[in-house]
Amino acid sequence: METQDFQLQCPIPISEYPQVLMAHGGGGRLMNQLLEKMFLAEFDNELLGARHDGARFPVAEGEMAFTTDSFVVKPLFFPGGNIGSLAVHGTVNDLSMCGARPLYLSAGFILEEGLAMETLWQIVHAMGEAAREAGVQIVTGDTKVVDRGKGDGVFINTAGVGLVPSGRNVGPDQVQAGDVILVSGDLGRHGMAILGARQALAFESAIESDSASVIEPVQALFEAGLEVHCLRDLTRGGLTSAMVEIARDASLAIELEEAKVPVRDDVRAACEILGLDPFYVANEGRFCAIVPEAAADQALEVLKSFEVSAGATAAGRVQSGPAGVVSLRTAIGARRILDMLSGEQLPRIC
Amino acid sequence: METQDFQLQCPIPISEYPQVLMAHGGGGRLMNQLLEKMFLAEFDNELLGARHDGARFPVAEGEMAFTTDSFVVKPLFFPGGNIGSLAVHGTVNDLSMCGARPLYLSAGFILEEGLAMETLWQIVHAMGEAAREAGVQIVTGDTKVVDRGKGDGVFINTAGVGLVPSGRNVGPDQVQAGDVILVSGDLGRHGMAILGARQALAFESAIESDSASVIEPVQALFEAGLEVHCLRDLTRGGLTSAMVEIARDASLAIELEEAKVPVRDDVRAACEILGLDPFYVANEGRFCAIVPEAAADQALEVLKSFEVSAGATAAGRVQSGPAGVVSLRTAIGARRILDMLSGEQLPRIC
Repeated sequence: METQDFQLQCPIPISEYPQVLMAHGGGGRLMNQLLEKMFLAEFDNELLGARHDGARFPVAEGEMAFTTDSFVVKPLFFPGGNIGSLAVHGTVNDLSMCGARPLYLSAGFILEEGLAMETLWQIVHAMGEAAREAGVQIVTGDTKVVDRGKGDGVFINTAGVGLVPSGRNVGPDQVQAGDVILVSGDLGRHGMAILGARQALAFESAIESDSASVIEPVQALFEAGLEVHCLRDLTRGGLTSAMVEIARDASLAIELEEAKVPVRDDVRAACEILGLDPFYVANEGRFCAIVPEAAADQALEVLKSFEVSAGATAAGRVQSGPAGVVSLRTAIGARRILDMLSGEQLPRIC
Repeated sequence: METQDFQLQCPIPISEYPQVLMAHGGGGRLMNQLLEKMFLAEFDNELLGARHDGARFPVAEGEMAFTTDSFVVKPLFFPGGNIGSLAVHGTVNDLSMCGARPLYLSAGFILEEGLAMETLWQIVHAMGEAAREAGVQIVTGDTKVVDRGKGDGVFINTAGVGLVPSGRNVGPDQVQAGDVILVSGDLGRHGMAILGARQALAFESAIESDSASVIEPVQALFEAGLEVHCLRDLTRGGLTSAMVEIARDASLAIELEEAKVPVRDDVRAACEILGLDPFYVANEGRFCAIVPEAAADQALEVLKSFEVSAGATAAGRVQSGPAGVVSLRTAIGARRILDMLSGEQLPRIC
């Protein structure tokens, strides 16, 4: 939709309520109007429509995954998405990393008084679209409004639940020496897209965020009957932090090959200008799958057959030791140790 | 614990990190330290300890309830609780209102840069205590830090899941004409406690929040085999908003008897001074149970046997019509219509 269409189609009349008021979070008539006309209409599903204190749904015997993430990204809109689509992708991807098929999400909004109603509508609409694309339902929610100057436009928390078929075990404790590390695509675009939008930097070409659901390639790995030892999305702290955490938790070593980790030229150039390392930059539609060597080629083919992971590579290998150490074999053949940063190079990236 | 004990026992050395830094939310070493030493240690359980992208747990075949709430209460500490205990009570109570036995919570923290580390610790400790008391586990979480002036100390989102035994159906669609409305105790204390703390008003006696888990009396109603048609907690918008919502969704009328709705004298006096109506003031440990007349006396006895609902009363009745109308029979015998307020009398109460 174009901006003008958003104004026209905003379900709360913008002429009457151009901005979010404290009363929109007060539990009274205005909040009810916002819930009914905007949230319930956009997220439209029976469970949410029941308007109980929570959603109720049947579950089969098995295992359930449950996760949560708050989103405070700044700015709210960036090339390739906005905080609404990001809030859906982040949580469905976390569920996918548990080996779960994501089913239901909750949405908790903390709105700042004075937020443009049209902005809220664009974000809510993007959430609805992202949920429909990912095949999940937003079934329960909450809206709070904080006074002007005590928030930053919108913060969104999403929690999610999904079902893990019995016997499916993925996690650092499953990782074994000799396993191959598959990286699902080029790194660093989400972080650099945010930075570009924040600083209004004129990168040579606009870098779009990689924010996307990775449900499909992950489910396809399982459906192909491939053994998957560990899945991890490469969000805050990027590839390096994920590898350090897994090596630590598995008490094994990991060696990455720099030349095999895909980074787009424009991302690499932007990182170089800004003194950033793409191995630490956050992604929102990238993950690594750690698989036994025997399954690696087939798993790579599966990943490459989906647009969101078409650029997947075998980028490294798990080694028996030294425990917890992650190293990088550089393009010129040198070897250096990778460690976590103390913080993040780019705050409020998600 | 006394303030001094909190300083001494804060698991992050206050001399080194007196305040929350941006890096505490950055996905790197400082965040890992905060997670391990404070969150994982205080919420201590196996599922959280696994440190996956989400928690995994077995579920039996049946129905699950799923709910979420964000907490933005101001001030963070008030007589009878703080934002941490409130964030647990709010969500376990929402699950209870679905007829569920609450099991697992998520916790999403949005911290403002510069928040005193000791304050965070007091809040996290209160969350841990409240969860242990309620018999639930905090199994997954997320921490974000926003820049100074873009938040307000701490916001907390909790989502929760619980199991609903099959055949247990509670909700406005179950409500019938002739049903009795039980109110679980005196109204208005949470709202007035917050207002007192916020304005540093010298109420004659300090009013303590009613914030508490209501799991026990609710479970006891079901365990006694009593038919329960609807449960609703009396949070934002208070008793009146809850009644208006239920009457609307059930297409029935509700009549309350003013004399039967308990309000403590100090709360009533404080409300009068400030021009507030205790029927609209938020509570955090109060609910209504709507039950068939035949079950009302026994249900009332069950509620009275628990400290948190010792002051329960039969406060009204459901009538066949006019649909959606809530009326109040006043102490002097007059009858007036109650409607939702457009907003809330007191913002940021929860």
